[in-house]
Amino acid sequence: MHPEAREELNLRLMRGTPTYIWLRDELRDVFGIEEKINSANAQSIYSAIEAKLTQPDFRPRPLFERLNIEVLATTDAATDRLQNHQAIRDSGWSGRIIPTFRPDAVVNLDTENWLQNIQQLDEVSGIPIVDYRSFIRALEQRREFFQAMGATASDHAALSAYTESLSEPEAEAIFQRALQNSQTPEDAARFTGHMLIEMARMSSEDGLVLQLHIGAYRNHNPLIFERFGRDMGADIPIASEFTRNLKPLLDRFGNHPNLTIILFNLDETNYGRELAPLAGHYPILRLGPPWWFFDSLIGMRHYLDGVVETAGLYNTAGFNDDTRAFPSIPARHQVWRRASADWLAGLHSRGLIDEEDAYAMISDMAYHLVKKTYKL
Amino acid sequence: MHPEAREELNLRLMRGTPTYIWLRDELRDVFGIEEKINSANAQSIYSAIEAKLTQPDFRPRPLFERLNIEVLATTDAATDRLQNHQAIRDSGWSGRIIPTFRPDAVVNLDTENWLQNIQQLDEVSGIPIVDYRSFIRALEQRREFFQAMGATASDHAALSAYTESLSEPEAEAIFQRALQNSQTPEDAARFTGHMLIEMARMSSEDGLVLQLHIGAYRNHNPLIFERFGRDMGADIPIASEFTRNLKPLLDRFGNHPNLTIILFNLDETNYGRELAPLAGHYPILRLGPPWWFFDSLIGMRHYLDGVVETAGLYNTAGFNDDTRAFPSIPARHQVWRRASADWLAGLHSRGLIDEEDAYAMISDMAYHLVKKTYKL
Amino acid sequence: MHPEAREELNLRLMRGTPTYIWLRDELRDVFGIEEKINSANAQSIYSAIEAKLTQPDFRPRPLFERLNIEVLATTDAATDRLQNHQAIRDSGWSGRIIPTFRPDAVVNLDTENWLQNIQQLDEVSGIPIVDYRSFIRALEQRREFFQAMGATASDHAALSAYTESLSEPEAEAIFQRALQNSQTPEDAARFTGHMLIEMARMSSEDGLVLQLHIGAYRNHNPLIFERFGRDMGADIPIASEFTRNLKPLLDRFGNHPNLTIILFNLDETNYGRELAPLAGHYPILRLGPPWWFFDSLIGMRHYLDGVVETAGLYNTAGFNDDTRAFPSIPARHQVWRRASADWLAGLHSRGLIDEEDAYAMISDMAYHLVKKTYKL
Repeated sequence: MHPEAREELNLRLMRGTPTYIWLRDELRDVFGIEEKINSANAQSIYSAIEAKLTQPDFRPRPLFERLNIEVLATTDAATDRLQNHQAIRDSGWSGRIIPTFRPDAVVNLDTENWLQNIQQLDEVSGIPIVDYRSFIRALEQRREFFQAMGATASDHAALSAYTESLSEPEAEAIFQRALQNSQTPEDAARFTGHMLIEMARMSSEDGLVLQLHIGAYRNHNPLIFERFGRDMGADIPIASEFTRNLKPLLDRFGNHPNLTIILFNLDETNYGRELAPLAGHYPILRLGPPWWFFDSLIGMRHYLDGVVETAGLYNTAGFNDDTRAFPSIPARHQVWRRASADWLAGLHSRGLIDEEDAYAMISDMAYHLVKKTYKL
Repeated sequence: MHPEAREELNLRLMRGTPTYIWLRDELRDVFGIEEKINSANAQSIYSAIEAKLTQPDFRPRPLFERLNIEVLATTDAATDRLQNHQAIRDSGWSGRIIPTFRPDAVVNLDTENWLQNIQQLDEVSGIPIVDYRSFIRALEQRREFFQAMGATASDHAALSAYTESLSEPEAEAIFQRALQNSQTPEDAARFTGHMLIEMARMSSEDGLVLQLHIGAYRNHNPLIFERFGRDMGADIPIASEFTRNLKPLLDRFGNHPNLTIILFNLDETNYGRELAPLAGHYPILRLGPPWWFFDSLIGMRHYLDGVVETAGLYNTAGFNDDTRAFPSIPARHQVWRRASADWLAGLHSRGLIDEEDAYAMISDMAYHLVKKTYKL
Repeated sequence: MHPEAREELNLRLMRGTPTYIWLRDELRDVFGIEEKINSANAQSIYSAIEAKLTQPDFRPRPLFERLNIEVLATTDAATDRLQNHQAIRDSGWSGRIIPTFRPDAVVNLDTENWLQNIQQLDEVSGIPIVDYRSFIRALEQRREFFQAMGATASDHAALSAYTESLSEPEAEAIFQRALQNSQTPEDAARFTGHMLIEMARMSSEDGLVLQLHIGAYRNHNPLIFERFGRDMGADIPIASEFTRNLKPLLDRFGNHPNLTIILFNLDETNYGRELAPLAGHYPILRLGPPWWFFDSLIGMRHYLDGVVETAGLYNTAGFNDDTRAFPSIPARHQVWRRASADWLAGLHSRGLIDEEDAYAMISDMAYHLVKKTYKL
């Protein structure tokens, strides 16, 4: 945030951004605050929110119910024992909170503290990880555990969509180098690309929906990284490529009857050029909603304009938010529903769809597609 | 197509796609079927179409006349003897059906059965193909023959727009390696790039309009390729580059007074960035209409928004469809005319063009530009 | 321009282009010519303009005042003695005409006549340029001189946004090779990338706003280059990359409190993907208005749609034209103001901003942002 942001307590810098919409709608719809916030009323609004948050109605569970949330999925390391999930289950509460299997920290060899993560995986799985095979078995064991705890999906992040099928001796050799902390950057890139295919293989067997998030250059600002650590907002997109990068994975699993891969990316140029043709062709592919910087009204219009003509609506995954701000969930879905309705109204007014289809499509976009795609 | 498509006989999966529009409009306007198709009426609609197709009015020639088609161009291998074209001519029918010269299968050394294709070229041209020079002479002979049969254009497809001027000894060496079936992938890429320049040279002499189609990764799905062979729909676009790739060709022929090259591509990001500036600058270049995945309402809007401000409308080629479905021809041109009229109305309502220009432009977009560009 | 352009004296080829709008509005608003120009009235309109230009009101200074120009900045070589600027100052006229420091011809080692340019820099600065250090000192001396003459900004053009921090011995070695005219193309690319960082260092000290223009492949057409020389309009954009290329510069200066870098580029795909996230994150970055081929109504809409949701309006630089046609200045700013107002009205009508914010934003877009960004 620019220095001047600290001097200005009003919303000037947020004008025209989705952050403004989310905050305005969340304050109004969840907290009943209708005033436009500015430096003059900042303290009184802060106090009003604080007062609300002490009320029983604003505890997470009543809020979950009032916000009409059917499912909330967390993202959890492969090594997580999911004790909080167990505690929710043990409490007898009926709200559906499920984990998501995110193995990046053990799969990407260039993760800081990778060896510690492997040690944790060893401990939590009870499988001594001494080679590639035992590593794979430990991952399979964790997936089984996550599914028992309600997971329906896994989540994977990579700089690029690069995939490569390593032979087992190649995978083993790289894995052994990593255990000796002597892997090269090329080893790490190839291993990540290989593990994406291996994860697709596991998903084709156990049915977890595989989410793939591509294209963020992480921790771009060294100042932020040194002061605050990783994943503190200094991530910048790069151009991405799917047609060639995904081919090794698609060669093996593209036509599989029991696999769903949802693609997310940060490069809008791929919507029409690569993603929609790929999702229109391969049965396993679905296109995730516009993500991160593109989770916005214009971002959604670009997405719908870019993918539906070629992929069809029914190769999209519907909408899920990835907010970390619990009370902003309704505002985020509201933006999607309005963007969808606006876009469909445009199709209808131009005679491209009839009213019957428009109503069916808005219902699918707002609700059914995401439930079906994620097996919820 | 996804497995569920086979379970659903209605148009659900086509909602919002151009396929839906084409099918709906074709059924209504050509076959007089007004019902929305679904699983319940599928058989009765099929029977109604079948019955129509047995009527004399629905034979190809009456349909050609009723659909008000002025010219229909086929695409034919360089080795084609054009016997069907000769038969049409011999029949005395006045419908204008013309061939288009497509030499990809003899020019791209990595074509399957390239040696057989060269053998056929040898036979059909009557020129023994023993070296690069005789290969070129045979191509020139075929072009002459195609022109005698009515052709006004050639058509070329390549993965990228890469061009390179080989010296004659280099071209000869690569050609000899190909005759020995010992060419490398690099040989094939360089030879394709060289032959694009050589085809431009021929066009500058014989006047055939050169169409260049760039950017499809062919036969992406090995399952489809193994079961059904090449060109069965499993083609996925890749990013394309023109500014550097076309420079060797443009260095030699970019300012030629007697040459037209029409560029088609599958990467919308190039409309404004490379294609419009290139077409605005070089006299030989025209921009083909949005192609394949982008032959759609939104695809057309992106195209017009992307190219006209910089290239001007008069460096575009107008519209031609490339449908394989004969009765869909009117629906496809109708989409273009409506997209054009809608786009021009937008310019007019914002005061960017006056009514006189709007009328002149829609007439050029719907009819005159394509006739002039293709020398029809 | 195509040959047919010479045959047609009407505006046919300009229909739908910004050139048409600028010319029409300039003739009407500056010269009072309301007629639509065509071949029939070409001579009479030419005569009318010529007659106007002889009137005292149409001399540059009265026109400057009538057109209500607050500041006009020229772009000047680092070696320029700014004698014209001195003459304006000496004349006592109050119009604000300021220079801009453009060192490309001494910084980019592959500039034709680079050694002559260095010789001139030596002379004009009075600093004997014998090594990298004295080169840097001479540049600093020129920047000081430009600032004394009113400059608030520098301007830099490069094919790519590549930056690299050379060690002083590396920089010295390359500079010495260049003085011997034995530098390699790689030397030139690395030195340009290094000097961008060095210029950022100077700007962080002296406060000149650094403008960076990326992505034009210059002198693409050899025929134009041979006949008319460099910078004659045959420049074609290429794809650009910022996330990785700017990282070395941003690592050193991205969070600097006293530095402004304005990024201009010719690749619209970067608006949302790289530029907006970078400008939203790094305090030193501002996004320049749509440039060159994109200085147009649709170009502006793409820009605003692409950057504001992520970067916010207040990380954009407002609007400056770069016209070489003095009387076209009002028309160019008018296009920006209308595009901005149209875009804001769209946000307002969809409930994304309220009226208060819309009025504040149009005022900032039309006037305040550019003044603040350029320290005017």
